[in-house]
Amino acid sequence: MMIVMKADADEAQIGEVIKRVEALGLRPHLSRGKERTVIGVLGDCRYLSPDDFVGSAGVDGIVPISLPYKLASREFQARNSAFSIGGVQLGAEEILIIAGPCSVESRSQLLETACAVREAGAHALRGGAYKPRTSPYAFQGLGEQGLELLAEAREVTGLPVVTEVLEPQKVPLVAHFADVLQIGARSMQNYVLLEAVGMIHRPVLLKRGAGATIEELLMAAEYLLSRGNPRVILCERGIRTFETSTRSTTDINAIPALKARTHLPVVLDPSHSTGHWEYVEAVARAGVAAGADGLIVEVHAHPSQALSDGPQSLKPERFAQLVQQVSAVARAVGRSVPPPSLCYVRQSERAEVEHG
Amino acid sequence: MMIVMKADADEAQIGEVIKRVEALGLRPHLSRGKERTVIGVLGDCRYLSPDDFVGSAGVDGIVPISLPYKLASREFQARNSAFSIGGVQLGAEEILIIAGPCSVESRSQLLETACAVREAGAHALRGGAYKPRTSPYAFQGLGEQGLELLAEAREVTGLPVVTEVLEPQKVPLVAHFADVLQIGARSMQNYVLLEAVGMIHRPVLLKRGAGATIEELLMAAEYLLSRGNPRVILCERGIRTFETSTRSTTDINAIPALKARTHLPVVLDPSHSTGHWEYVEAVARAGVAAGADGLIVEVHAHPSQALSDGPQSLKPERFAQLVQQVSAVARAVGRSVPPPSLCYVRQSERAEVEHG
Amino acid sequence: MMIVMKADADEAQIGEVIKRVEALGLRPHLSRGKERTVIGVLGDCRYLSPDDFVGSAGVDGIVPISLPYKLASREFQARNSAFSIGGVQLGAEEILIIAGPCSVESRSQLLETACAVREAGAHALRGGAYKPRTSPYAFQGLGEQGLELLAEAREVTGLPVVTEVLEPQKVPLVAHFADVLQIGARSMQNYVLLEAVGMIHRPVLLKRGAGATIEELLMAAEYLLSRGNPRVILCERGIRTFETSTRSTTDINAIPALKARTHLPVVLDPSHSTGHWEYVEAVARAGVAAGADGLIVEVHAHPSQALSDGPQSLKPERFAQLVQQVSAVARAVGRSVPPPSLCYVRQSERAEVEHG
Amino acid sequence: MMIVMKADADEAQIGEVIKRVEALGLRPHLSRGKERTVIGVLGDCRYLSPDDFVGSAGVDGIVPISLPYKLASREFQARNSAFSIGGVQLGAEEILIIAGPCSVESRSQLLETACAVREAGAHALRGGAYKPRTSPYAFQGLGEQGLELLAEAREVTGLPVVTEVLEPQKVPLVAHFADVLQIGARSMQNYVLLEAVGMIHRPVLLKRGAGATIEELLMAAEYLLSRGNPRVILCERGIRTFETSTRSTTDINAIPALKARTHLPVVLDPSHSTGHWEYVEAVARAGVAAGADGLIVEVHAHPSQALSDGPQSLKPERFAQLVQQVSAVARAVGRSVPPPSLCYVRQSERAEVEHG
Repeated sequence: MMIVMKADADEAQIGEVIKRVEALGLRPHLSRGKERTVIGVLGDCRYLSPDDFVGSAGVDGIVPISLPYKLASREFQARNSAFSIGGVQLGAEEILIIAGPCSVESRSQLLETACAVREAGAHALRGGAYKPRTSPYAFQGLGEQGLELLAEAREVTGLPVVTEVLEPQKVPLVAHFADVLQIGARSMQNYVLLEAVGMIHRPVLLKRGAGATIEELLMAAEYLLSRGNPRVILCERGIRTFETSTRSTTDINAIPALKARTHLPVVLDPSHSTGHWEYVEAVARAGVAAGADGLIVEVHAHPSQALSDGPQSLKPERFAQLVQQVSAVARAVGRSVPPPSLCYVRQSERAEVEHG
Repeated sequence: MMIVMKADADEAQIGEVIKRVEALGLRPHLSRGKERTVIGVLGDCRYLSPDDFVGSAGVDGIVPISLPYKLASREFQARNSAFSIGGVQLGAEEILIIAGPCSVESRSQLLETACAVREAGAHALRGGAYKPRTSPYAFQGLGEQGLELLAEAREVTGLPVVTEVLEPQKVPLVAHFADVLQIGARSMQNYVLLEAVGMIHRPVLLKRGAGATIEELLMAAEYLLSRGNPRVILCERGIRTFETSTRSTTDINAIPALKARTHLPVVLDPSHSTGHWEYVEAVARAGVAAGADGLIVEVHAHPSQALSDGPQSLKPERFAQLVQQVSAVARAVGRSVPPPSLCYVRQSERAEVEHG
Repeated sequence: MMIVMKADADEAQIGEVIKRVEALGLRPHLSRGKERTVIGVLGDCRYLSPDDFVGSAGVDGIVPISLPYKLASREFQARNSAFSIGGVQLGAEEILIIAGPCSVESRSQLLETACAVREAGAHALRGGAYKPRTSPYAFQGLGEQGLELLAEAREVTGLPVVTEVLEPQKVPLVAHFADVLQIGARSMQNYVLLEAVGMIHRPVLLKRGAGATIEELLMAAEYLLSRGNPRVILCERGIRTFETSTRSTTDINAIPALKARTHLPVVLDPSHSTGHWEYVEAVARAGVAAGADGLIVEVHAHPSQALSDGPQSLKPERFAQLVQQVSAVARAVGRSVPPPSLCYVRQSERAEVEHG
Repeated sequence: MMIVMKADADEAQIGEVIKRVEALGLRPHLSRGKERTVIGVLGDCRYLSPDDFVGSAGVDGIVPISLPYKLASREFQARNSAFSIGGVQLGAEEILIIAGPCSVESRSQLLETACAVREAGAHALRGGAYKPRTSPYAFQGLGEQGLELLAEAREVTGLPVVTEVLEPQKVPLVAHFADVLQIGARSMQNYVLLEAVGMIHRPVLLKRGAGATIEELLMAAEYLLSRGNPRVILCERGIRTFETSTRSTTDINAIPALKARTHLPVVLDPSHSTGHWEYVEAVARAGVAAGADGLIVEVHAHPSQALSDGPQSLKPERFAQLVQQVSAVARAVGRSVPPPSLCYVRQSERAEVEHG
């Protein structure tokens, strides 16, 4: 059980709650986030009632074990979280499309692909500078040089940059270059990293682990929110199942299930969730039809030469077709894919973020 | 490996192939279907080449272990299988919507729901007379009385009837009343049943087992096709995974993956694949966006009183809304949900089936 | 919810309970087993308390939804179910070893393997006459001829025969030849078959479906028990997971989890649960160490020539080694693998079964 | 594909291989480990033959995509890796037992449990100072204070300490206090952490991720080995499946499957792999019967008061019983659980490690 204090609770009120927890033979565990303090109650809570604390001065609410996230929940905030990426307003009816190569491989590869996805209608550019690879012998990304190339691609195209950060120490460096920090599927439960990213002023794209439940994804988001970063985008990218025809199984149910549980925007990564470029368009359309707020798609000008994820990367012309198809589906469900020109709004948005 | 003989292969040609198999130290296993004979090659085939048989008189093709289905495959038949249900032409751009209660519970319940789904736009009526239930103590369906009520509902609404058959001996009885026979998820690998249904003149709705792969579903279809029944509809209805927020995980990838592998129509059952009525609309839209040829949806006039599957059943008004939403998505992907009046074509279709 | 009547409840008591159910606005569903009558309560039971019925004349107990099996549960019967197969006393400290080929392929193959497993220490002979095969073109078993060969092998070796039955109509035929009827993994939820096998006087080996939960396995056993057949052996044979190094994942946890929940004996099939003969010995030892009451192992005199399951079949000499290893582990956990000579007790046992 | 250079390959030989890769239109990627250099070949390797490089001067071997780990493989090293922990010789016939609380909670809790597990026969003490918790509000461990308490417990009991490290920056600190570093299931694919731990002189206990395959576990081990740390212990701790009766599904098949593929020692964590203390003994016995080289077990003097993992923690007296049972099973499979007094050998071992 955890006791969430009101945003304006004072030290005396916090102290009072702590005393009461101790009097019940339990131990309080203080967690001071940017926005509010939460007091975890440690020990055997089985005989503890929320009634023991609800109504105490300064107490906002009690979160029992059965719904272990709070800040991420619709109960806590009924209206959608709203913020913009690349000029696209998340939390309303607009659909955000992020596209680009799996890895930044070279200046020419990145710029060619970035221009192509911009032209095809993408609102933001993805590309990995630090790559978590299953094999220690595989290409691990260009690192800081990759970040610089991403920044250059942003200058050229006007597209904000989404890129992965793998370790807490690199958060400031990646945040210096990137507009949105990605936490990859394999890092979803890297809590030290979550805490570091929770402390900065940058939107975060949080990918669901391939072996993680919907609830665990929301708990990972709770780490980010509880440390003070409110701009969290959840990303379904496929789960591990017994089916081997596709690399992962897209959990399309997760889209309405997440939208019911949380106010955070939800995007789908049909490239990883299928693992086959032939299925990416169909599953991208399905994602938007199911209520996703955006897509993140792997595009490579020359997939057969890609250093990673070639089999699931679309060529630019197929990606342009995907944008057309997805736009039609978006209209059918009362939403819209904004034209890419809108992304120039981004410049002011970025300024606001940096000085805000 | 299996050797598929041409439809017009004669006994001499079959005998020749058998001799050759034996000469290679292997054993032939003859399987005579309605349309063609297949010779399985038993023993260690690892050193056997398709070249040993391709080109022999009467041999149509060789199916290696890696693609164990043939008649169901796109390689065998590139164009979509086409046939109509309830006046809706499967295999083309039309979307078929089947709806109705999980179980037939009573005359009034069935007729009320059947009329409601007809009015909302369904093209066919589903309803279980024989119910496979996890518990021996649960309601097992009304049996033959349920079939009679389904036939009455067809007279009243003009909707063709889709209903499950659980055992080979009941195939003639169920086929007498029903327009489409359903093989449920738990029966997908009941090969004795598949063989019996493969012998009759009725379209079949074949549901994927919750623990079955895409390939196994196609192999089950192969049983039906190899016994001579060409009108097979595949149905994705969710698979078993570690995710517990939803009853099953809708394998949305399976839709493009199946369409790539087979010429058979593919429908989605969003009621079972989510298990929560709140998610049914979203996942129904996703299915059509991903390329499904139809939907099968549980609707109950009074879900809270349903004897089975209440939590995943839509009320008629929500179902009407689903049809509207799905129609809009269908148009967005270049397809259409025919208006229900078309279903009167069914009368002649049914006649043709019975006398054809 | 279901109301289990006492074995000696009379019609008046049953009628009284039915009236009370109806008075509460719910519908009763009568299920008359050989041993006792169970009244299912249909409708919305959420506001119904067990107290409404407990204490009524003739009522033995109430099974709520959360524990949907009763006759199979330890709550219902605390002591282990006890019966003997091949002279081995199940339900006590003895370990039963069943071995033989996947399929009966020929007289010489079967007799050679049967004698070999008898010599190596097996107490019963397995062998499939009817084979459920994923492919319609694969070897489907020798059918009745296979049953006759099994009976001959029993005469030669004295080993009782365990063989699969696939359809209700074949139950009397298979029961005529076999000592133990096997319900295969793919038939675990074939309720029509379960009911037919529940009505006969033969022990049953019930295999867990590869996609079925522990609870569903117990519910399938409940079908058998509720129809009057008390001699049910549960068999763990591996479940479907994302791991592809092995054909299935042996759910070793299921052994203690089943022993905690049910009084029925539990055996392990390490051949199917691993799919690789190299791992069969290790997992067989693990099964007995975890508390299994027996093993069922695939053995083939010439695995490379097997028509089915060659890769997971042990040669007789490896099987003999397995028996030695398992015997040592059995002693370490306070149990024993009886010497095979005990199996001659079987003759009287069989007589008793047939005339009992 | 990767080209593994011999340990004594010189720069000229490495340069020669690089040139040849480039001449084939592919890109080389150099990875210089402590022991050897590996050259990854980037690009489309499908038409590349190992023969293109095998036999070149300085080349040790080629690892194709199908077996992506090398240093961890039995092909690379046929004999078991051998090293000792707590006086127990891994890689031979001895069984290592590690036990202790999930978390270090307080001085008295730790010392009480440490003495109890020592007395019951454990060879090493486990205990978490840094805890990765799903909830940001849950107890996260005592941190450095926890490490100091673990060091104190080692002084008191003589047991070497196994504890988890969560982030690269803490590796030197944790290695200062701990004898064995644990990489938890959620960190198995934290490659930055793997690299940091790969660089130090401490044995590592590497836990399999709950959603990770056997091959991915071996790839994670390859990270450690390729950075120069040869003392890697693999740990099976249960995987995610659809079964919900237990917290995880123990993949018992993984034990023989790992022993067949790798020379590294393999231990089992039956506490996490079952999640229920009632099943821990049975599954611990199964692990040793299946060929595990050790066990890691959660023990708490007062499970109901544990701050984490209470439901799966054994009381000391049950743990003592587990050690007795496991010792008997070990003898049955030709192995042994050394008496705890042997652990005093550890002192010299530790000295050797620190100055070696």
